[in-house]
Amino acid sequence: MTGPRHMVHSVFAGVLFVLSAAGASSASAADRDKLLSEPGVYGTFAAFRINDEWGRLDQKVRSTQLNAFKAVVERHRDKLAIDTYLLRGLSDRADFLLRIHGAELKDSQQLLLDVLASPFGRYLSGELILNGMSKKANYVPGFPDGMKADLKAPSESGPYVAVIPIRKDADWWALPQDQRLAMMQEHTEAALPYHKTVKRKLYHSTGLDDFDFITYFETAKPDDLHSLILALSKVKEARHNRRFGHPTLLGTVTTLDQLIETLGQ
Amino acid sequence: MTGPRHMVHSVFAGVLFVLSAAGASSASAADRDKLLSEPGVYGTFAAFRINDEWGRLDQKVRSTQLNAFKAVVERHRDKLAIDTYLLRGLSDRADFLLRIHGAELKDSQQLLLDVLASPFGRYLSGELILNGMSKKANYVPGFPDGMKADLKAPSESGPYVAVIPIRKDADWWALPQDQRLAMMQEHTEAALPYHKTVKRKLYHSTGLDDFDFITYFETAKPDDLHSLILALSKVKEARHNRRFGHPTLLGTVTTLDQLIETLGQ
Amino acid sequence: MTGPRHMVHSVFAGVLFVLSAAGASSASAADRDKLLSEPGVYGTFAAFRINDEWGRLDQKVRSTQLNAFKAVVERHRDKLAIDTYLLRGLSDRADFLLRIHGAELKDSQQLLLDVLASPFGRYLSGELILNGMSKKANYVPGFPDGMKADLKAPSESGPYVAVIPIRKDADWWALPQDQRLAMMQEHTEAALPYHKTVKRKLYHSTGLDDFDFITYFETAKPDDLHSLILALSKVKEARHNRRFGHPTLLGTVTTLDQLIETLGQ
Amino acid sequence: MTGPRHMVHSVFAGVLFVLSAAGASSASAADRDKLLSEPGVYGTFAAFRINDEWGRLDQKVRSTQLNAFKAVVERHRDKLAIDTYLLRGLSDRADFLLRIHGAELKDSQQLLLDVLASPFGRYLSGELILNGMSKKANYVPGFPDGMKADLKAPSESGPYVAVIPIRKDADWWALPQDQRLAMMQEHTEAALPYHKTVKRKLYHSTGLDDFDFITYFETAKPDDLHSLILALSKVKEARHNRRFGHPTLLGTVTTLDQLIETLGQ
Amino acid sequence: MTGPRHMVHSVFAGVLFVLSAAGASSASAADRDKLLSEPGVYGTFAAFRINDEWGRLDQKVRSTQLNAFKAVVERHRDKLAIDTYLLRGLSDRADFLLRIHGAELKDSQQLLLDVLASPFGRYLSGELILNGMSKKANYVPGFPDGMKADLKAPSESGPYVAVIPIRKDADWWALPQDQRLAMMQEHTEAALPYHKTVKRKLYHSTGLDDFDFITYFETAKPDDLHSLILALSKVKEARHNRRFGHPTLLGTVTTLDQLIETLGQ
Repeated sequence: MTGPRHMVHSVFAGVLFVLSAAGASSASAADRDKLLSEPGVYGTFAAFRINDEWGRLDQKVRSTQLNAFKAVVERHRDKLAIDTYLLRGLSDRADFLLRIHGAELKDSQQLLLDVLASPFGRYLSGELILNGMSKKANYVPGFPDGMKADLKAPSESGPYVAVIPIRKDADWWALPQDQRLAMMQEHTEAALPYHKTVKRKLYHSTGLDDFDFITYFETAKPDDLHSLILALSKVKEARHNRRFGHPTLLGTVTTLDQLIETLGQ
Repeated sequence: MTGPRHMVHSVFAGVLFVLSAAGASSASAADRDKLLSEPGVYGTFAAFRINDEWGRLDQKVRSTQLNAFKAVVERHRDKLAIDTYLLRGLSDRADFLLRIHGAELKDSQQLLLDVLASPFGRYLSGELILNGMSKKANYVPGFPDGMKADLKAPSESGPYVAVIPIRKDADWWALPQDQRLAMMQEHTEAALPYHKTVKRKLYHSTGLDDFDFITYFETAKPDDLHSLILALSKVKEARHNRRFGHPTLLGTVTTLDQLIETLGQ
Repeated sequence: MTGPRHMVHSVFAGVLFVLSAAGASSASAADRDKLLSEPGVYGTFAAFRINDEWGRLDQKVRSTQLNAFKAVVERHRDKLAIDTYLLRGLSDRADFLLRIHGAELKDSQQLLLDVLASPFGRYLSGELILNGMSKKANYVPGFPDGMKADLKAPSESGPYVAVIPIRKDADWWALPQDQRLAMMQEHTEAALPYHKTVKRKLYHSTGLDDFDFITYFETAKPDDLHSLILALSKVKEARHNRRFGHPTLLGTVTTLDQLIETLGQ
Repeated sequence: MTGPRHMVHSVFAGVLFVLSAAGASSASAADRDKLLSEPGVYGTFAAFRINDEWGRLDQKVRSTQLNAFKAVVERHRDKLAIDTYLLRGLSDRADFLLRIHGAELKDSQQLLLDVLASPFGRYLSGELILNGMSKKANYVPGFPDGMKADLKAPSESGPYVAVIPIRKDADWWALPQDQRLAMMQEHTEAALPYHKTVKRKLYHSTGLDDFDFITYFETAKPDDLHSLILALSKVKEARHNRRFGHPTLLGTVTTLDQLIETLGQ
Repeated sequence: MTGPRHMVHSVFAGVLFVLSAAGASSASAADRDKLLSEPGVYGTFAAFRINDEWGRLDQKVRSTQLNAFKAVVERHRDKLAIDTYLLRGLSDRADFLLRIHGAELKDSQQLLLDVLASPFGRYLSGELILNGMSKKANYVPGFPDGMKADLKAPSESGPYVAVIPIRKDADWWALPQDQRLAMMQEHTEAALPYHKTVKRKLYHSTGLDDFDFITYFETAKPDDLHSLILALSKVKEARHNRRFGHPTLLGTVTTLDQLIETLGQ
C-alpha cells in the first residue's frame, strides 16, 4: 500500500514468519490498480475483534494459526485487492479491518468465509461489515473546469486511515439533482485545501447495508483529517447527514505481515 | 431455489453428506409455489449466529450435528417452504438465515423449536426473528393497466439476497388511501426499471414484530439492488420511513446442503 | 388457559413428568378469574432466556431441574395467577414468558426470586420485566351505549399471544380528558371488528417500568391481530405513541407442563 | 430503614449468619439522618448483577463470601449511610442496588472498590452507577405558604422503591427562573395528593453522570406511585423531560441481612 | 499529577511493588508540561474493563502481570505523557482510564498495543477510545481583555476527574464565526465563577472519533463541577449540543502505582 513490499524473513518468538512479497499468484499491480480506481467495483469493509481466549493460546499455536490465516488471504489475491488495517489502540470497535475490492461480492464473501473457517477464525468475531461499490462521479461532471483539474492532483497516503459511514436524510434524496450538485460543489470547495494531504475514496452502499456511503480517508496528518471533516461539517450538505460515523473507525495502514506480527505478540 | 436440485453425494472431511433432492416427503413443488405466491401465508425470517465453541468441536461431531439439523429441516418440509441463506461474510448480524413460509405460524415455531433442540441448536443463538404475512396487493388494483402488465413480467433471482425491514411513520398511516395510492404508484414507477433483474417480495408485519413490512430482494446484480433502493429513496413515500433496515441483511441464496457444507468446514 | 387442564402423566426421555391439574393448593378458578378481571391487580411480565450451557446438561439433570422449577411455580399459585408462554421460535428476545397476576407486587417478586434461586434458575437470564396494573376503564364510561354493549361480548383466546408495551408522548398526557376520550372512542371503533377474534387486556405501567401501557393480545388468528394493530395505527391516537413495541413479544400460550416438556427436549 | 433493626441469628442451609444490629461502629442514627436530609450530601446509586457462575458455587463458599461482603459494607458505615434494595424479580437491569450517601464521593468509591475486590465482588458486574447530590430546594422558597406547609408533612416509606433518572431538554434550562418556578409549582400541586403515601427524594446529577436528576421514591402502595408519576406526566414541566427513566429501577427495600439471605439461597 | 511522586516501596499481600518515581527515562517534566499545554498535541482516552477471570487468578500471578503492565507504561513515557484514572466505583462504563498525550497518534496506539499484548492485557477489554487534539483557542482572541486575563489564572486540580464527549448539531457548524464567538463568550462568562476550582482542558475530535469535542475536568469539589455544567446548560450554545456525554466518565486521578495497588487487591 505504501510503496513496494519486500521479501523478508522475520523471526518472532522463535517462530518463522515468511513475509510476503507481491508474488506471481497475486493480482498484478495493474489489476489491483483497476480494482482500486475503476467504477463498478465492490468494496467490503470487515472489522474483527479477537476473542480473549486467543491471547492465552500457546505462542506456537498462534503463529501456526496466523500463518494459515495469511495463506487464506494470499490465496484470494488473484481475484481480490485486500488491504489490512490495525484498529486496535485507536478504535474501540474492533482489532483489525480488512478492506476488500472485487468484481463480485461473492468473492469477498468467500474470502471472509475462508478466514472464519480457518483455525484463527474461530477466535474472531465479526464486529462490522460494510458493503459498497465504486461508481462514476455523480457531480464532478457538473463542476467548473478548474475544480476538476484540482481534483486530479495526486493525494498522499497513510499511515492513518479513517472509515466513516454516512446515512443521508430523506430530504437529501428528495432534492433535485441541480441543488444537490450545487451543494456538492460547495462541499468539494471546502475539501480541496486538504486534497493533497488526505486521500479519499467513496463507496456507495444504499441497499447493501444500513448506510448510503462509506467514506474512506488516508493521511499522514490526522490534524488535516480533522480539519477536513470540520470543514465539511460547515457546508449546507452536512445538514443532510442523518448519521455520520457511529462508528468512526480510526486505524493505521499495515501490511498483512505487519498485522500478523502485531497480533502474534 | 435456483432450479432443480439433484441427488448427489458429497464427501467432506471424511464424512458423508447425503445431499437432499426434493423428495417424496417434501411439500410438492406445487405446494411450495402456492406458499410462495399466495396471499395469507405467514413468513418467518430467523437469523442465527453460531457460537465460538462450535467451531472448536471435533469435525465428526460437527458433521453428525449438521446431519441431524438437516433431518430436522427436511422433516418439516411437508408443511413448510424453507429457504436457507448464508449471511456470514456479507452481514455482521448473523451467520445464516432461514426463511420459512407456512399456513400456520405455529408450524414455523415448531421447526425452530426442533432446530434449537437439536444438538447443533445448542450452539446457535437466535439473533433476529421477523414475522410477516403475504397479502393481496393493496395498491396495484388502482394502478394504470400498463403498470399492472409490467409488474406481471418475471424477475430474475439470486444468488444475492437482501432483507430490509421497514417501519412507517404515524403520518403515513394517517393519510387517506388515495394519497397513499398515488405515492405507491410513484414508488412503483421508480422501481420498474429494476423489475427484471431484482425479484421482490413483500411481507406485512405490523403487530407481528416491531416493523410494518419485511422487504425481500433477490438478484444476480447487487448494483441493480443498489440502484433500486436508491431510486426508492427519492420518492415521496420514502419520507414516511421511520426506520429502514437496521438491520439490512445481505447474503447469498444457498441450498441446505451447501449451507451445511459451508458450516461444516 | 385454554379450557380445563387434565391430570396426565408424560414419560419423556425416560423421565416421568407429573403433569399438573388445577389442584387443591392452587388459587381456585374463582380467585383466578378475579385476578384476571378485576381492577387494582398487578401484572408482571417476565421473559427469560435459557443459557447455552443448560442445553448441554445431562437429560436427567435437566428433568430434575424442570420438575423443581414446576414445584416452585405451583407453590405460588395460591396467591398468584401464573400463565406461561413459549416465545422461542417467534421472538428473538427470550425463550419463554411468565405472566403473573397478584394483589401484591412483592408476591410476584417472591415467585421470580424462587424461580431464579432454583437450580434451573441458575441457567436463566431475565431479559425483560414489565410491571403494570389493571384499572377501571378510563374512557369506556363516556362511550355510547352501543359501543359499551359491543365491548361486553366475549373474545376468543389463544394459542397466539402478543405483548406490546407502549409509551405515549408528552402531548398525549397534556391533552384534556374530553379530547383523549374522543380519540379513544375512535380507537375503539377501529378495534371493534376484531373484538371477537382477538382478546385484549390492558395494563397501566407508568412509574412501574419505562412504559405507560402493556397491551396484551391473544388470538387464534394472527392475521386478525395484524389487521387490528394496523387499524389502530391509522387513528389519531396512534400519533401519540412515542414508542410502540421494541420489543413486540410474539409467542404461544402453553401450559406449564407443555413448557417444561418443550424445554426438556 | 423501616424501623429499628434487631440482633438476631439466622441459620440458613447450615451456615450461621450473624445478623447486624445498628452497632457502635456504624454512623449514629443522628449522622445517618443528617446524611439523608441535609443539602450538599453526595448520593451514589450502584446496581449490580450477579454472574451465572456464582449461583453454581458451593453453598458454603457463597455464605463465606456473603459474610465478607457484609463485613465490607459494615466497615464503611462510619462515614456512609448505605441502603440496600432487591431489584431482582421487579427489574431486568440488575439484581440488587446500593444507595450510598456520603460527604465525599471518594468514600463511596472506596466502598464500591472494596465490595468489588472482595471474593463476592468477582462475581458481580456493575450495571449502572448514578451519582448525584442533595441541594437546597430550588423552587420551594417561591411556593405559597400553604404548599410549603403541606410539603413538611411526613411521608410513609417502603417496602417498594423506584429510582427514575431524568434528563431535561435544552429548552428547560434556557427558561427564566420564574417560568421554571411556575411550572414546578404546578408540578408540586399535582404531586401533593400522593405526598403522604409516596416518599420522594431528589438528587441533582448534572455533570456527575448522564442525567440531570435522580428521583427516588418509596411507598407501600405501588398504585399510588403509578398515580403520582401519571399526574406528573400531565403537567407542563413534563414536556421538558428529554429522557425519563431508561432505566426505571423498581425494587424492594431490604436490610443488608435480608439481602444476603436472599442471595445466599 | 498531584505534586511530586516519591520513590517508595509497598508490600502488598506479600508481593513487592516498586513504586515509580519520575525517573530518568521518563519524559522530563518540561516535556510533559509541553505535551499538556501546547496546541497540536494528540490526546487519546482509553477506558478499560477488567474481565471477571482476572480477579480469580492467583495473587502472585496478578502482581507479576501488573508489574509487567507498569513496565510497559513506563517504557513509553519518553515520548508520551500518560495519566491514569480509576473509574471503578464512580462510572459503570469501565474500571480504569488512560489519558495519553503525544506528538503522534501512532505512539499512543503503540502504547495501547503493548498494554494489550502484555499478560494483563489479555484480561482487558477496551470499552471506549476517544481521540482528539489540542488546538489554539478558537474564540479567546475575540474575548474582552478582562476575560482573557481571568482565563489565565491557575485552576486547582484533582482528585476528581470527569470526561464528557460532546457532539454539536449541524446548525452550530453552519453559524457564522461571529455568532459562535458571541455564544462562546456567554459560555465562558457562565464558566468563569468555577475557573479556580475546576480545571478544564478541551480536545477537538471531529473526524478522529464520533464526537466533536472531548471535555476534561479536574476538581476537588464535585459540587462545583456540577454547578459549572449546570451553568453551561443554561447558555444558548448548549442548545447546539446534539450529544452531551453518553458516556460521562467520572473517576479519580490516581498514580500508576496506586492504580496497580488498587487493581492488585
